Amino acid sequence: MPKIMKSINAMHRAQAIYRTRMMGDELSAAHHTFIFAITANPGKTQDELSSLLCLNKSTVARVIAQLEERGLCKRVPNPKDKREQLVYPTDDMLALLPRVREVARAWADIISEGITDEELQVFASVISRMEINAKRALEGGEK
Amino acid sequence: MPKIMKSINAMHRAQAIYRTRMMGDELSAAHHTFIFAITANPGKTQDELSSLLCLNKSTVARVIAQLEERGLCKRVPNPKDKREQLVYPTDDMLALLPRVREVARAWADIISEGITDEELQVFASVISRMEINAKRALEGGEK
Repeated sequence: MPKIMKSINAMHRAQAIYRTRMMGDELSAAHHTFIFAITANPGKTQDELSSLLCLNKSTVARVIAQLEERGLCKRVPNPKDKREQLVYPTDDMLALLPRVREVARAWADIISEGITDEELQVFASVISRMEINAKRALEGGEK
Repeated sequence: MPKIMKSINAMHRAQAIYRTRMMGDELSAAHHTFIFAITANPGKTQDELSSLLCLNKSTVARVIAQLEERGLCKRVPNPKDKREQLVYPTDDMLALLPRVREVARAWADIISEGITDEELQVFASVISRMEINAKRALEGGEK
């Protein structure tokens, strides 16, 4: 079993290298992840993005600040609780989305070569349950 | 398919949070990965570790320097090519290995809860083929 995590970690890092190769001048690998998360979930708080992405709050704050500085997202006070800020994509972020999606699809094609649909179905079912197990375990401790 | 990478990336980050929770004062999450790689492959060059781990050469150089400074690994000139340095674990790194393994096993138990042996077998087979596909694709480009 520990070998499974070794491969999962290698896959994560390999995709990061691929993302940087494909769009390195425009975006860091982590920025792809945030573009997907923010455009799919507009109006989340940084804490919610932290849970969603399994990232420390400090990392989320740092990347959101980078994206905001580049005009790719904006923080708006929550009308229901002014102490909170909600994160929204800008038009510039939405304009990047098709290319970011294209890079993700190309990578998915590369890694799934030679793997049957049945195998991919089992794989998708297992990894989604692993993710639920992982998030549940982390929620037991401090964030 | 892109959802699969989303889960793979979340699993990577979740394990990093778990590793830091379990051994944060002693080791960063990335250090666990290097301890496994260096102890399982003593005498590799930094470039070989870079390919093995799917990490940029600059990242490998930075982490190896951190580990060396903490007395956890040492770099020795390659007797066959003095321009190269080979990376070896120190006794202090070997002493950390049982605890690092224990954290990995505990995490494996957490994420595999409720998943059958048959499913895990398919999963392990698919992810190892995905890793081969990924590494082959990256080797096509520059490092």
